Amino acid sequence: MTAWIACDWGTSNLRLWALDADGRVLAERTSDKGMGRLAPDGYEPALLDLATQFLPADVCPFTVPVPVIVCGMAGARQGWREAPYLPVPCVPSGAGAVRVATRDPRLEVHILPGLSQTDPADVMRGEETQIAGLLHGDPGFDGVLCLPGTHSKWVRAAGGRVLHFGTVMTGELFALLSEHSVLRHTVGGGEDPAAFDAAVTAALADPAGWMTRLFPLRAEALLGDLSPATAGARLSGGLIGAELAAMRATWQGQQVALIGADRLSDLYARALTGQGVPVTRHDARALTLAGLKAAHAALGKVAA
Amino acid sequence: MTAWIACDWGTSNLRLWALDADGRVLAERTSDKGMGRLAPDGYEPALLDLATQFLPADVCPFTVPVPVIVCGMAGARQGWREAPYLPVPCVPSGAGAVRVATRDPRLEVHILPGLSQTDPADVMRGEETQIAGLLHGDPGFDGVLCLPGTHSKWVRAAGGRVLHFGTVMTGELFALLSEHSVLRHTVGGGEDPAAFDAAVTAALADPAGWMTRLFPLRAEALLGDLSPATAGARLSGGLIGAELAAMRATWQGQQVALIGADRLSDLYARALTGQGVPVTRHDARALTLAGLKAAHAALGKVAA
Repeated sequence: MTAWIACDWGTSNLRLWALDADGRVLAERTSDKGMGRLAPDGYEPALLDLATQFLPADVCPFTVPVPVIVCGMAGARQGWREAPYLPVPCVPSGAGAVRVATRDPRLEVHILPGLSQTDPADVMRGEETQIAGLLHGDPGFDGVLCLPGTHSKWVRAAGGRVLHFGTVMTGELFALLSEHSVLRHTVGGGEDPAAFDAAVTAALADPAGWMTRLFPLRAEALLGDLSPATAGARLSGGLIGAELAAMRATWQGQQVALIGADRLSDLYARALTGQGVPVTRHDARALTLAGLKAAHAALGKVAA
Repeated sequence: MTAWIACDWGTSNLRLWALDADGRVLAERTSDKGMGRLAPDGYEPALLDLATQFLPADVCPFTVPVPVIVCGMAGARQGWREAPYLPVPCVPSGAGAVRVATRDPRLEVHILPGLSQTDPADVMRGEETQIAGLLHGDPGFDGVLCLPGTHSKWVRAAGGRVLHFGTVMTGELFALLSEHSVLRHTVGGGEDPAAFDAAVTAALADPAGWMTRLFPLRAEALLGDLSPATAGARLSGGLIGAELAAMRATWQGQQVALIGADRLSDLYARALTGQGVPVTRHDARALTLAGLKAAHAALGKVAA
């Protein structure tokens, strides 16, 4: 029987898990009703679309609502309801959750806050729950987390707390350059690990020169026979290398917990281990669920 | 009476000048029939649209065709007819022009080549004519030219020759980030010279950190009250500063001839003079015409 529901509500997708009182996953559901497609009054129906089968069938005066713990963009200002950011340093689990009123009395929705930082200004929303999942499972963690993506996050954590973080728009820059700039004619899919490694090395050796290494991809394709795969590997290696150069003070001499099991994270693992950095790999989905469980426990919603 | 026609045929626009035998401009015409809108068989009609009134009204067996000297993207592979790149180092005027056959016997069209470089791979098409214009007017020039734009060009020239050049996609990066990235919500028009100067200084002081200074613009707007004008000034200052950092070996200790009279070039002049670099300003349109005149002369088409 469903004791509570965990929700990861991002910009593009909604993912929920129905859990029993012992924290076992009974079912997992996803839909494409992400924040980007919803007005505020669309969230409750989108949630019910996936959750109805896990709620009591009948509503009576004694119906006990099912707790729903939500992380992610549903808590943005333009989301379901704003869950204000929690400033770092802080423990990223459960504190600051916002209760959202619902028309359906079977729901008791709590949205978790994101994290904010003043200097330099930065924010995250969703990733804090993955971080909470990792810190909950490894309370003695003292090191750096890297969450590669459209907006990569680099996080310094110790003692169960997030101390400091930084966002780098590497994935968005790659998408803009490879799909919308003059390089779109030149950059394609495929793999070229040697070209990737060389580009990472060049970016780390001469981070100031990053801008001079973009247009030559186009020129070399015009003048010679640069393959789309090699051009793509050079572009991604150059950008990931530039990201590593920018974040060097954060990772140097640290262990890095890399959250992500996809091809992008493989590239980060390759680049970091190439710099002699010890890397551990973690599954983002599993950590999100672990973080939602930690928040559920912290909110006092543990089963009696 | 029109002795020849000079054409600057870019991606977006076509500009032509009718000149007399003494090189005086009789008329100037523009249209939006740039390379981006034309198939190969569309060039001659587009040229005739603007040029007909400067050509002999009647065609007879003794009609002498009017030379038309074209620079720019009309000579690209996907243009009217490819005018292969001239490799540097070279004198950028007239050599390598390609004769294009026309249906109209009143036209004698020559397309000027762009310039190419092998290491690092680079190309230009159109800018070489502005450079030729400057070098023709100042044969003793020994220094650096900077042509800011979507793809900024930095050129080392001496002895009337282009020795080396580099392309930096600064303008395209600014457009992508300010119009298509998450920063589009944050970055707007308007001026903030102090924020621009500070961003240039920060970029030059810490070029490796450029990537870390993008997302904080968004975060500061979310958390505080960063104005769109200040965010825009920081973004453009950060990118131009990063460009200067990347090209430092090219401009340091040199005089820089800045080609461009628009607001963008004002920003480059401000950034360069802030670094103690002596800057001279030059009008791009006037230099293009001067370069086309130099090419016309070199092609042996000077008036008898």
